[in-house]
Amino acid sequence: MVELSISGTKILSTVLFLYLLVCLVNFPAAEARVRHYRWKVKYEYKSPDCYKKLVITINGGTPGPTIVADEGDTIIVELENNLLTENLAIHWHGIRQIGTPWFDGTEGVTQCPILPGETFKYQFVVDRPGTYLYHAHYGMQREAGLYGLIRVSPRQPEPFSYDHDRSIILNDWYHKSTYEQAAGLSSIPFVWVNEPESLLIQGKGNFNCSMVSEPGVCNTSNPDCSRYVQTVVPGQTYRLRIASLTALSALSFQIEGHNMTVVEADGHYVEPFVVQNLFIYSGETYSVLVKADQDPSRNYWITTNVVSRPNTTPAGLAVFNYYPNHPRRSPPTSPPPAPAWDDVDSRMNQSIAIKARQGHIITPPTTSDRVIVFLNTQNKINGYVRWSVNNVSFNLPHTPYLIALKENITDAFDQTPPPDGYDFLNYDIYSVQNNTNATSSNEIYRLQFNITVDIILQNANTMNKNNSETHPWHLHGHDFWVLGYGKGKFDMYKDPAKYNLVNPIMKNTVAVHPFGWTALRFRTDNPGVWAFHCHIESHFYMGMGVVFEEGIERIGDLPSSIMGCGHTKTSNPH
Amino acid sequence: MVELSISGTKILSTVLFLYLLVCLVNFPAAEARVRHYRWKVKYEYKSPDCYKKLVITINGGTPGPTIVADEGDTIIVELENNLLTENLAIHWHGIRQIGTPWFDGTEGVTQCPILPGETFKYQFVVDRPGTYLYHAHYGMQREAGLYGLIRVSPRQPEPFSYDHDRSIILNDWYHKSTYEQAAGLSSIPFVWVNEPESLLIQGKGNFNCSMVSEPGVCNTSNPDCSRYVQTVVPGQTYRLRIASLTALSALSFQIEGHNMTVVEADGHYVEPFVVQNLFIYSGETYSVLVKADQDPSRNYWITTNVVSRPNTTPAGLAVFNYYPNHPRRSPPTSPPPAPAWDDVDSRMNQSIAIKARQGHIITPPTTSDRVIVFLNTQNKINGYVRWSVNNVSFNLPHTPYLIALKENITDAFDQTPPPDGYDFLNYDIYSVQNNTNATSSNEIYRLQFNITVDIILQNANTMNKNNSETHPWHLHGHDFWVLGYGKGKFDMYKDPAKYNLVNPIMKNTVAVHPFGWTALRFRTDNPGVWAFHCHIESHFYMGMGVVFEEGIERIGDLPSSIMGCGHTKTSNPH
Repeated sequence: MVELSISGTKILSTVLFLYLLVCLVNFPAAEARVRHYRWKVKYEYKSPDCYKKLVITINGGTPGPTIVADEGDTIIVELENNLLTENLAIHWHGIRQIGTPWFDGTEGVTQCPILPGETFKYQFVVDRPGTYLYHAHYGMQREAGLYGLIRVSPRQPEPFSYDHDRSIILNDWYHKSTYEQAAGLSSIPFVWVNEPESLLIQGKGNFNCSMVSEPGVCNTSNPDCSRYVQTVVPGQTYRLRIASLTALSALSFQIEGHNMTVVEADGHYVEPFVVQNLFIYSGETYSVLVKADQDPSRNYWITTNVVSRPNTTPAGLAVFNYYPNHPRRSPPTSPPPAPAWDDVDSRMNQSIAIKARQGHIITPPTTSDRVIVFLNTQNKINGYVRWSVNNVSFNLPHTPYLIALKENITDAFDQTPPPDGYDFLNYDIYSVQNNTNATSSNEIYRLQFNITVDIILQNANTMNKNNSETHPWHLHGHDFWVLGYGKGKFDMYKDPAKYNLVNPIMKNTVAVHPFGWTALRFRTDNPGVWAFHCHIESHFYMGMGVVFEEGIERIGDLPSSIMGCGHTKTSNPH
Repeated sequence: MVELSISGTKILSTVLFLYLLVCLVNFPAAEARVRHYRWKVKYEYKSPDCYKKLVITINGGTPGPTIVADEGDTIIVELENNLLTENLAIHWHGIRQIGTPWFDGTEGVTQCPILPGETFKYQFVVDRPGTYLYHAHYGMQREAGLYGLIRVSPRQPEPFSYDHDRSIILNDWYHKSTYEQAAGLSSIPFVWVNEPESLLIQGKGNFNCSMVSEPGVCNTSNPDCSRYVQTVVPGQTYRLRIASLTALSALSFQIEGHNMTVVEADGHYVEPFVVQNLFIYSGETYSVLVKADQDPSRNYWITTNVVSRPNTTPAGLAVFNYYPNHPRRSPPTSPPPAPAWDDVDSRMNQSIAIKARQGHIITPPTTSDRVIVFLNTQNKINGYVRWSVNNVSFNLPHTPYLIALKENITDAFDQTPPPDGYDFLNYDIYSVQNNTNATSSNEIYRLQFNITVDIILQNANTMNKNNSETHPWHLHGHDFWVLGYGKGKFDMYKDPAKYNLVNPIMKNTVAVHPFGWTALRFRTDNPGVWAFHCHIESHFYMGMGVVFEEGIERIGDLPSSIMGCGHTKTSNPH
């Protein structure tokens, strides 16, 4: 990012520079290019919300560098692990990895972890334009700060216009280390991670340092936590790419006094609709168009708030700065209030409003070959609190599935097929169920190649009375059609008739709302082994995920770089 | 350890049980046995000094289980790494690993790290009786609590007698995580680990919880930090095996009102001498005989204090409990005062007093084939604070030396031989030197096989005026003769004439005192690659170490289990 300075002339030159950049982006070279990145990953003390803690940085920063590319470009990231004792893996979230399933970056699924001192080379094509993400996919490292954005520009003109293209990653932030959080989640008695201490807008938040007694730990004047400023020129239109990589929180996002027109979701064009609050779930990306059409004599608040959970996390604040006002001048008004955290209907309605844009609809197959229903429940297994899918709580194996399947290593994981459903007739999704038959397993779904699969995500009551949570489910290796949402128990006889088969949006991450269901459809057309999981860091850690295999027999030789752990550890020293 | 209960009958039965155990130990079976351990390593919340933090446990505990064996036994430890994202390696400190140099457990030197989910099988012979240690040898994990004791009983009668055999590990303890410490040490500006918050006696200390404002973090009634009690029967004699695994601190150890007769050091019998304070450095072990010959109507303090550094760390306290007094009854007196921290002479004098026991002297060769002088200095390299040996600051490579050398992988580390000395004539060890020529390197010393090598450890001023620190140097794969200690700069013409060649003690860890020197001799008779380094966790991390290779050509096939990292990562999936 070009850093904004308080000097007016510098801002002007920055704006000019950005304008030139946009021109370049709008007229890309016809030739696909190779974009080569060299990233060093290490622990450093940073104060993203003014509270000093160890974070994982890429080339000294969190968020890491934005990958900027054109449709069809090849991205090479040489990732050097400079952590002391800890391994790494990075997932390229939303990139389908067609032909390169081994570079999906999912530890235990597609690769062995990258050891300290190793340099791992990821190489893949960004075959579709849009807004994507990258982040650690190992243990709970994402939450330690290892994440960033991928912006892929189209080769064709876009169906909307704007003057400037900007990106903002939203995140929630914890002061405890990920080790402490993971140890608590794996303890008896269970220690929950609790609500985040703050919300970050483009890596910057603002914790109330008066709550910290230890000297030197929290400092509101630390430049790491200087409020994020989005400078705009009156009258111009901005494409804001809004992404969420929260560990836990569903968020709302507002720009005080400004409407936002949603035009992109997870890399797909959306039939435009206007919001004041944009609800966004972990793993999702949206593009909204915002026109700087309000009173230009002042600045405005950008706010983000936790929704869907009762919480004490203060709003994340940034400034929507009308040039030439001083970027550090606070808006004269109070930040707009947060939407009611428990207003499920508003969130459900936004979900339903997201349709594919006319002229850009990819029509789904009208029927499916296999339907899998995933009951989302919280369970106790051997005294540990876990999340489960059809009463199976997922564990990652230590030999990645991709390698085990390709090399016929049959003892690397449980070969039993996991269940395609649950006891639809008798299970009461509205009350606490004991789920005593829940088990932990690393078994996976083997899907026939080139078929159409429907997934019904069925939410239910947690282990707490009258409680059901929001889960953003993310599918690797595919985009899926979102066929429908509903409240209560999915009715397999009546609900499919209501599916939107006309203009469903395609996404890679979708929410299942409290006590509700979400229906998806996808084609098993990408040979590989793909995780499908709740994108809440602690939920996946606690078992809320599954793995799909498709077309393993069509995959070419695996690169040796992904091997070296579990059953793929070898005796050959060269 | 058998846990002491407050019930008198239980204590009596415990004492009887221990007595029987001693009888068994005194008459071991003639046959060498295999001792098989299965250890699970993970992070858990513990409160060793009443302050709750994440520690690395073995089978749920820190310190880990004591390995109890007879001379000649084979130890098998199957180590399961249950950490989430972190690798492991365990060093068997004092075990020479004759014939098994690949199981020394030194990450980067003798093996690749053990990945999460892996089970690594260590297998080695404990060929000599004595008191040894084990601990993590990867990153700074030792300090996170991964350590324990090895007690090897002799097949021959010992030259002293006692009624009971007990062990106590001393340690210093920090509340910050090892990640935080390492990040600070690798930062510009440098952030020092500071003095430890407390001292632990057999894993138990007592932090002043009134200094902690956060609720639930520090709790003096937590059983994890119940004061350690050593129960004794009046009139009986106890062999106490005292070991130190401090991260930083040199310690004194006292039993209020009792003399201690030193009889063993690092597995070698010592010509007995009596102390009130036992000075002990990280990596050392001692056996002392203590007779319960004081007023039996009361209990006595066991204390340990930091010496050799100005410090604010409170004494570590335990109770020397005369049966049948209540083990939790505090002694009526104040704990004995700590020796003056800066009394170098007393510590030097104890070092000099440690000689091999008559009848158990292993005579050193009278001459040496190679003399290497190691100047110990603190330096700045590229702005980072480092420790150096002859102005070379050591970095571990990511392909272990043992594998690189055996397999002729020549690009795994710098093949330049490091220097055998420094500028003896001109270097002023008494003042701050700028050491601007210092470099970082992973170069190693190649030693001819079956020769005699002398090492002179030469201490010097640090980067702070009038300051020189104590460094406990530990040699892997060997015991060395301690030929002498001196003050000031070693005189290569005069000092060797004063060497003790008559009855020098053999040890594996030895201190070099402030502004002093220590002279060692060893035979290069153990084919392998062996680290020699300051046992202070942060000092080794900051470069204070070297590596010796000897007889690499005599080493048989390496086990494949030690491979899998750096240049030994392979493409063969089976």
